[in-house]
Amino acid sequence: MRISLAQINPIVGDLEGNSRKIIACIKKARSLKADIIAFPELSVTGYPPEDLLLKPHFIDGNIDVLNTIRKEVLGIAAIVGFVDRSEWLYNAAAVISEKKIIDIYHKKHLPNYGVFDEHRYFKGGTVYPVYSFNGIKVGINICEDIWSDNGPSKVQAHSGAELIININASPYSIGKRDFREEIVRKRARECAVSVAYVNMVGGQDELVFDGGSFLMDPDGKVLLRCGQFIEDLLTFDFEPWAGRSMPRRVKSFRGLLSAGEKIKMVDMTCPSSKKKPALKKSIVKEMPGTEEIYNALMLGTRDYVRKNGFKGVVIGTSGGVDSALVATIAADSLGAENVHALFMPSMYSSRESREDAYLHADNLGIKLFTIPVSGIYRQYLKTLANQFKETSSGTAEENLQARIRGNILMAFSNKFGWMVLTTGNKSEMSVGYATLYGDMAGGFAVIKDVPKTLVYRLCRWRNEKEGRPLIPERILVKEPSAELKPRQRDTDTLPPYEVLDPLLKAYVEDDRSFDEVMGLGYDADTVRDVIRMVDFSEYKRRQAPPGIKITQRAFGKDRRFPITNRFRSY
Amino acid sequence: MRISLAQINPIVGDLEGNSRKIIACIKKARSLKADIIAFPELSVTGYPPEDLLLKPHFIDGNIDVLNTIRKEVLGIAAIVGFVDRSEWLYNAAAVISEKKIIDIYHKKHLPNYGVFDEHRYFKGGTVYPVYSFNGIKVGINICEDIWSDNGPSKVQAHSGAELIININASPYSIGKRDFREEIVRKRARECAVSVAYVNMVGGQDELVFDGGSFLMDPDGKVLLRCGQFIEDLLTFDFEPWAGRSMPRRVKSFRGLLSAGEKIKMVDMTCPSSKKKPALKKSIVKEMPGTEEIYNALMLGTRDYVRKNGFKGVVIGTSGGVDSALVATIAADSLGAENVHALFMPSMYSSRESREDAYLHADNLGIKLFTIPVSGIYRQYLKTLANQFKETSSGTAEENLQARIRGNILMAFSNKFGWMVLTTGNKSEMSVGYATLYGDMAGGFAVIKDVPKTLVYRLCRWRNEKEGRPLIPERILVKEPSAELKPRQRDTDTLPPYEVLDPLLKAYVEDDRSFDEVMGLGYDADTVRDVIRMVDFSEYKRRQAPPGIKITQRAFGKDRRFPITNRFRSY
Repeated sequence: MRISLAQINPIVGDLEGNSRKIIACIKKARSLKADIIAFPELSVTGYPPEDLLLKPHFIDGNIDVLNTIRKEVLGIAAIVGFVDRSEWLYNAAAVISEKKIIDIYHKKHLPNYGVFDEHRYFKGGTVYPVYSFNGIKVGINICEDIWSDNGPSKVQAHSGAELIININASPYSIGKRDFREEIVRKRARECAVSVAYVNMVGGQDELVFDGGSFLMDPDGKVLLRCGQFIEDLLTFDFEPWAGRSMPRRVKSFRGLLSAGEKIKMVDMTCPSSKKKPALKKSIVKEMPGTEEIYNALMLGTRDYVRKNGFKGVVIGTSGGVDSALVATIAADSLGAENVHALFMPSMYSSRESREDAYLHADNLGIKLFTIPVSGIYRQYLKTLANQFKETSSGTAEENLQARIRGNILMAFSNKFGWMVLTTGNKSEMSVGYATLYGDMAGGFAVIKDVPKTLVYRLCRWRNEKEGRPLIPERILVKEPSAELKPRQRDTDTLPPYEVLDPLLKAYVEDDRSFDEVMGLGYDADTVRDVIRMVDFSEYKRRQAPPGIKITQRAFGKDRRFPITNRFRSY
Repeated sequence: MRISLAQINPIVGDLEGNSRKIIACIKKARSLKADIIAFPELSVTGYPPEDLLLKPHFIDGNIDVLNTIRKEVLGIAAIVGFVDRSEWLYNAAAVISEKKIIDIYHKKHLPNYGVFDEHRYFKGGTVYPVYSFNGIKVGINICEDIWSDNGPSKVQAHSGAELIININASPYSIGKRDFREEIVRKRARECAVSVAYVNMVGGQDELVFDGGSFLMDPDGKVLLRCGQFIEDLLTFDFEPWAGRSMPRRVKSFRGLLSAGEKIKMVDMTCPSSKKKPALKKSIVKEMPGTEEIYNALMLGTRDYVRKNGFKGVVIGTSGGVDSALVATIAADSLGAENVHALFMPSMYSSRESREDAYLHADNLGIKLFTIPVSGIYRQYLKTLANQFKETSSGTAEENLQARIRGNILMAFSNKFGWMVLTTGNKSEMSVGYATLYGDMAGGFAVIKDVPKTLVYRLCRWRNEKEGRPLIPERILVKEPSAELKPRQRDTDTLPPYEVLDPLLKAYVEDDRSFDEVMGLGYDADTVRDVIRMVDFSEYKRRQAPPGIKITQRAFGKDRRFPITNRFRSY
């Protein structure tokens, strides 16, 4: 039996566009004589559709489009993720053959943690179908279903399934690919079943779906794998595993079912073509960690900018490492000709910063404009002189400079239709070392979830890949500074980033207590100061633009904190 | 049996402060010879604690504090909302007597819609206890539990409960009080049971808990009611209803229980005092609609500002109706001496605007500073002249003016420690008639969920209450204008607000389709334009400050929309 896994990049809400893409894949798979093609979770709507799901006419539209797709399914069976509706909504997979919807599977296990809100919209399913495709027994389930130790996979395998097709919209984070394969391996081995794992690809607001769909045998070996971060169609000939014991009878495994749940056996004959063209067996090697992260950032940026209808972007470059990385990612993902940089010096900007910004822009081939902010800054001070006269210069004045730059970037955005990319990293976002409406102003925060130490690692990786210092070496070695006052250094108010970043991970990502963080080898004052800064900055993060999740817990939908909050971890 | 309902205003995360407040109420109730005191849902942690619940040391702290409270419970029984933990977390009520935790009830029905995310944190309970307090049978359950037709209340009533004590953290929205009483009335009647409904009070980020705790008899009559928007301790003598049929035997009602659920009967003897002082029966009359909304906005503002440690606020006043309302609410809730206003005229500001802003500030007794923005604006244009030279003046230039004002407000905030209150209304937030980082810049958006037509109604109500035009009449009758270019009127780009507001309600709050909105009597072009503006402004709303929810669906946690979204309702 020949199976195609369609690793596609749908756009949330683009019902027409997504259906055209799905139909094109069906035609392509049919031309390869595939018997079955499987699409990712909620391919029709894109993932996650969020509160679009509360609009009845959106659900109607998604069902209309499924029917359009249905009419194109001939000479092949298609498994298509969509939103089903009866009394409730279901995260569903339609099994379509010969223009008919043969069956609909409802996802049982609904994730409602991290970035996920599926209980907000869906009910869980209670029926576990096993399809007999021309005699080969196949279980279908959706994403989280395969993560659960007592989920549909086991019931389906015990009911005779030789292959589980698990359709996904599983977002990227560091280490997720390995973790995913481990989970599927565990399931494949304990169920003595092959698993075809098809994932979505593409960026959607804070999320990047990384693809990497694969076929695993019951030994837990990955036989085939799609590319990461690209659309792909993986087609293979599935042969039931010789070592597997004969399919066991259904009724022996009733004990796995909870009250109200049931198994359903569905016989399907797919019009199978005997003469099939030969296939090239392909297993794409996994990307190493740093390359993977860089690619996630590229895809997240490209899709956010393009899917929102923008062509060009504009970036405030300071000659520092953060804006250098963002400009590089932007040039790599959007093309240098679509990237515009503004260097906006004040009286506190160094000569080195200017030289570095220009050298880097030259290396990338992006346009760089210099817009000095001192004149505007002086005019602000003059306007405010009367009210501020008995005060000493401080945060208000520093923030003004950052906000003037924010305004200028937004003026360029309004004038020329370029999206502003912000350049703040996760370390800064964590401790609030950023100016609201200043350097935080923009449409998309590319490296919002990238800790400062990883910023350096990504730059070095990119330079190595280039074989030359695309990002000038001085940017990578000079001491970080916001340059908002004379001789300012990040370390004036923050611990060195090598110290700060693991502390932040422990507190923000791992929810460690004060004592536990101390136990990692920090002194009490540092821990207290950092925790205080993190807690106090929640109001800023709430107004930050979205950015790409790459860690276990990103700021955004992944971490939902009260602003009004008197709890102190120290 | 004497019962006290403690309608308290806890602060999220303030475990110590909340426990002090709880203990003070216990002492007060004991002095009134109450036998039982009931506190709102999650009184120990405040509601909603959001992702604080993911911190194990936060859960520890909440249990420590419950134990502190436990030791103070003597001569009275206390029902205290807290987070219980075994293998999972539970939204729980501890039943405490004589310094012992007698029992813990786990909330069964977990809301996961609108602003609620309880499936993210909690498991639902499966045990329905009925407590025999000195022979009177009492069922305890939590908030949503009483909303469900087949929830704990029915099981408890059928198991003999004569009184249900339902503890809540139920946020305000327009009409919610009536709706709540209707639900409880239905439950009271069908279960032939009295209901003591105790609600939280206070503002927490986007939410306002309105209090209004009450006692209802099995006929559905409200016998007693606390005040709204204030802390209150409602103490009453409960007498089982004479008309009630005798408690039916438990086993006849097993059919109401699902698999795994059970009833538990708990006998408690409370050390009851025979000699009780007389109580004054009090039933506070419900506030009329407009007054109720105004009070919700006052409490939401006061608690956001105060609980976040601010004393003063600063508001950009334009002489328009929105900033007039926000300044009035701020003066009413924080005291005029804590409210500072900035009038920031440009070349497009009218003389009338200035006069109105000054007259209104005088009426309120708040300080008003004038900071002209023209000089700064000219400096921006000069700085950008080279890059903008072949373009015509438009959105970039208009937004610059709004952003200069935003910067000045933030400079005052940074300099003097005043929180900036923004003045945008819901109609503007809906269609994006607001400048990101301009008039949207600030810590709290007081009237973010108030449609423009309601802004006028609230102003007129406030003037009537004052018995004189506190808000000058001209502010209420002149045509709305952003004054960002010559002779600009809101109606240049928007339909009149009387037309716009019901259309927005239909689309944003009621999820009506294009055809359904048309069916309300609008022409196609208007509907299409408005829907397009709403859809396109999602990126702005994502970066808006939080504001007070007063409608059925507010922008914020209540409405979770993708920014990247190609779905078109038209």
